[in-house]
Amino acid sequence: MIFNFILSTGIALKTVTAMNFEIQMFKDKDFVYIDYVAKVKDTGEIFDTTIEEEAKKANIYSNNVKYEPKLVILGEHSIISGLEEAIYQMNAGEEKEVEIPPEKAYGKKDPTKVRIVSLGDLKKRGVNPYPNMMVRFTDGSVATVKSVTGGRVVLDFNHPLADKTVIYKVKVVKVLQDEKDKVKAVLEKWLGKNNADKFGIELGEDKKNLKITVPKDYYKVEDFQLVIYMLARDIINYVLPESVVSFIENFQKDTFS
Amino acid sequence: MIFNFILSTGIALKTVTAMNFEIQMFKDKDFVYIDYVAKVKDTGEIFDTTIEEEAKKANIYSNNVKYEPKLVILGEHSIISGLEEAIYQMNAGEEKEVEIPPEKAYGKKDPTKVRIVSLGDLKKRGVNPYPNMMVRFTDGSVATVKSVTGGRVVLDFNHPLADKTVIYKVKVVKVLQDEKDKVKAVLEKWLGKNNADKFGIELGEDKKNLKITVPKDYYKVEDFQLVIYMLARDIINYVLPESVVSFIENFQKDTFS
Repeated sequence: MIFNFILSTGIALKTVTAMNFEIQMFKDKDFVYIDYVAKVKDTGEIFDTTIEEEAKKANIYSNNVKYEPKLVILGEHSIISGLEEAIYQMNAGEEKEVEIPPEKAYGKKDPTKVRIVSLGDLKKRGVNPYPNMMVRFTDGSVATVKSVTGGRVVLDFNHPLADKTVIYKVKVVKVLQDEKDKVKAVLEKWLGKNNADKFGIELGEDKKNLKITVPKDYYKVEDFQLVIYMLARDIINYVLPESVVSFIENFQKDTFS
Repeated sequence: MIFNFILSTGIALKTVTAMNFEIQMFKDKDFVYIDYVAKVKDTGEIFDTTIEEEAKKANIYSNNVKYEPKLVILGEHSIISGLEEAIYQMNAGEEKEVEIPPEKAYGKKDPTKVRIVSLGDLKKRGVNPYPNMMVRFTDGSVATVKSVTGGRVVLDFNHPLADKTVIYKVKVVKVLQDEKDKVKAVLEKWLGKNNADKFGIELGEDKKNLKITVPKDYYKVEDFQLVIYMLARDIINYVLPESVVSFIENFQKDTFS
């Protein structure tokens, strides 16, 4: 409605409006930091948040979680699709409440993922099941115990939030523009902030060359070659597609002492 | 005797002689390539050689062995001590026959390393033992079957050449002087010649900086970080103790396609 109205008022205004749209709406590969509080629509139960105070209020606070704005690289699909789609339509600084149906959140329930196993079998594996208990198996799969009756246990391997409509109160708190900041964000995503700070990042004037110096701490980390590979891939995919990205390790006598 | 005689002939001759000694005798960290034929003194049986023709003559030729001069970095202790000691005393191009007692070859026999196991036990592991058979166990240990009598098998975990005096006919075929050649030799030692050829080696004029460019082939090799660590350690230990040795991996868009 508003858009149509502006269109009808003449060329000058139209141009300005178009520019505003370009500046404010996000596009693929944008680096956006969000804060959010997520709840189940039916029950109002808060199940996730980036804000320490909100986590405490909702009684889901954990010492293992770092409460800080979350990096979303648009197009990376690292968050549920409904939330990512919503962010594309937001502006920096904007806050919004988004209702997301199961299809764009944690999926519909798959009845074939509900299985009956024997109580004795679980006990042999050291699990003493009770309703609503979460059980993690050695293959990485996680199930919720639905019921324990007689010798039978009903396990549900669906995501606990399957079939739920969820509501995210989300705010875009920061948007990165500078390539070096984005490279740093990629390092932080894979390695954590404290570790990322130790890497040297040097971006050539023409942005065709990025040199990343690996700190000594990583010289004896077995699978670090694969980390370098993933870092390089993300940097080239999302930040500097036309650059040579070099990882450099400098050894000298005292490296080995 | 000769040395004493020269000493008594005056200062000029002494100096020249001392220089000759320095040039021709080897020292720690020298990179020396040798060819050899090794045999057991008692039996005359040839058990190892770097020369294809000799291996064929002795009926020990194997398709899995690369017959070529062997790199010895003096002081690295990568070969039996008696042979390494002998090489220190040789000159480039010199050929020599060295008799090496067990203590400086493959050790004395340790009677506690001879064990009796049950035939049934070995058969359960899929081993059908017969005298002189070599058996490799999952922990990496290797034993020789000494006898199979009744249900009992005598296994000898001593080195097959323990207690043997060995004779090496050894020739120093090449000595490396140039640092870049030595770096390349270290790469070849760890990675094989074909792979080493793909690395870029750039040594600064003042020899304070060595840049090694890793080829794309290694970007997805899981434990390559540890290989880099060992290469850097060897290069600094044996070739360029005062340099910064940099390993560089260059990624760009087409690295991932």
